[in-house]
Amino acid sequence: MIGIVGGVGPLAGLDVFKKIIEETVALKDQEHLPVLLSSQPQRIVDRTNFLVGKEPTNPAYAFLEIIKELDAAGAQIAAIPCNTAHAPAIFDPLRAALNTPPLSIRVLHLVEETAKFIQQQYAGHKIGILSTTGTRDTGLYTKMLEQHGIESISPDDVLQEKVHQAIYNESYGIKAYSSPVTTHAKEDLIQVVEELKNQGAQVIVLACTELPLALTEKTYFGLPTVDPNRVLARALIQHVAPEKLKPL
Amino acid sequence: MIGIVGGVGPLAGLDVFKKIIEETVALKDQEHLPVLLSSQPQRIVDRTNFLVGKEPTNPAYAFLEIIKELDAAGAQIAAIPCNTAHAPAIFDPLRAALNTPPLSIRVLHLVEETAKFIQQQYAGHKIGILSTTGTRDTGLYTKMLEQHGIESISPDDVLQEKVHQAIYNESYGIKAYSSPVTTHAKEDLIQVVEELKNQGAQVIVLACTELPLALTEKTYFGLPTVDPNRVLARALIQHVAPEKLKPL
Repeated sequence: MIGIVGGVGPLAGLDVFKKIIEETVALKDQEHLPVLLSSQPQRIVDRTNFLVGKEPTNPAYAFLEIIKELDAAGAQIAAIPCNTAHAPAIFDPLRAALNTPPLSIRVLHLVEETAKFIQQQYAGHKIGILSTTGTRDTGLYTKMLEQHGIESISPDDVLQEKVHQAIYNESYGIKAYSSPVTTHAKEDLIQVVEELKNQGAQVIVLACTELPLALTEKTYFGLPTVDPNRVLARALIQHVAPEKLKPL
Repeated sequence: MIGIVGGVGPLAGLDVFKKIIEETVALKDQEHLPVLLSSQPQRIVDRTNFLVGKEPTNPAYAFLEIIKELDAAGAQIAAIPCNTAHAPAIFDPLRAALNTPPLSIRVLHLVEETAKFIQQQYAGHKIGILSTTGTRDTGLYTKMLEQHGIESISPDDVLQEKVHQAIYNESYGIKAYSSPVTTHAKEDLIQVVEELKNQGAQVIVLACTELPLALTEKTYFGLPTVDPNRVLARALIQHVAPEKLKPL
């Protein structure tokens, strides 16, 4: 069984689950893979707030408890569809706690899986990164891509504020208005993609799990988008039932 | 916590979960409600096959086991987003088993919640019912609506076959091709709605949880659609956090 830690944000867990269904070879209900999605948003403090020092509690411990629950329920593999949760300040203590004593459940690293995918598909390309400010400031994607031999660029402060507001703003951001996403959020994001293209980006990583809800096309201005949630969904299937993974 | 028995079909559980998020008043992650979605399609035989005698095992017992797991995990209320699962031949033994000994979790009845909603919103209207053949032949909606004082009509055998194939056909049905739904499935369903309108229907109930994936508009030929999954999502919120339920 696949486990998903949901609630970060609420739609991101559903998004990965939907992509697991989309990427699975199955013609009837019974051929789909078992999945347990545990969405406990009230237990998990905002990841960005923790990274920027506005929130003292490390969300790693809430993630640990939920992963233990997924393990006890029979999940062999799990993932957290929240990029910011993979910052070392959160993911490193989580990984350490998962290993002492070792749980049988394995937890995939969203950013590492994405970097591996980009290395396979877009070696030699310059990658533009759209993310929360928390993710950008930790250099999470930049460093992971660098470790995989991939060059990247991130928005400058003015553009970054546009991206961050498109996600978090309480009057038009995706976290508050996701179904449908507001035109304001969508247009701001598209403008940032265009600017990153002008600065040399050849591929865009949608490095916050809310972003694919707004940027739903496969390309913008000719730049292909990489959706870490879809990469993650495929990696989860690959681990539990490789024979059911659809070809790319 | 809200529990959802998923996997019947796989997208229907996600659909109810998404509608819970949409119908909840929340401006940030932490304000959303805790939800546990357990999708175990391999454990649950096809409900229609059981009702028409092609499958000997009653899926009620698999539903019972999953509901017990949701109860043990802390869910106070649960639902099964599959109309066919609410046929008396399946739901009655499930309800009996849930009461001996009584579990603390409460399980909402999808069809009963829908009939209550129609009674409140569309009293005096004639209701057209789109469903699987299993659901139609058991008279599940017809009888429940009648008990709530509501008149309804169902497709004749020729039209019903179109609806059933739009759901089940392995080359174009919604269960095999749901994201996106095929034009073939969508057009056949719209044609059946038009025929039901000609026969006097004033409101259309999408009485199989796959149907709202194909019929996404609020009205067809002026007939409003009722989506039992959205009705169910609202009833679940009403039970755990009425103050967070969005106004209609």
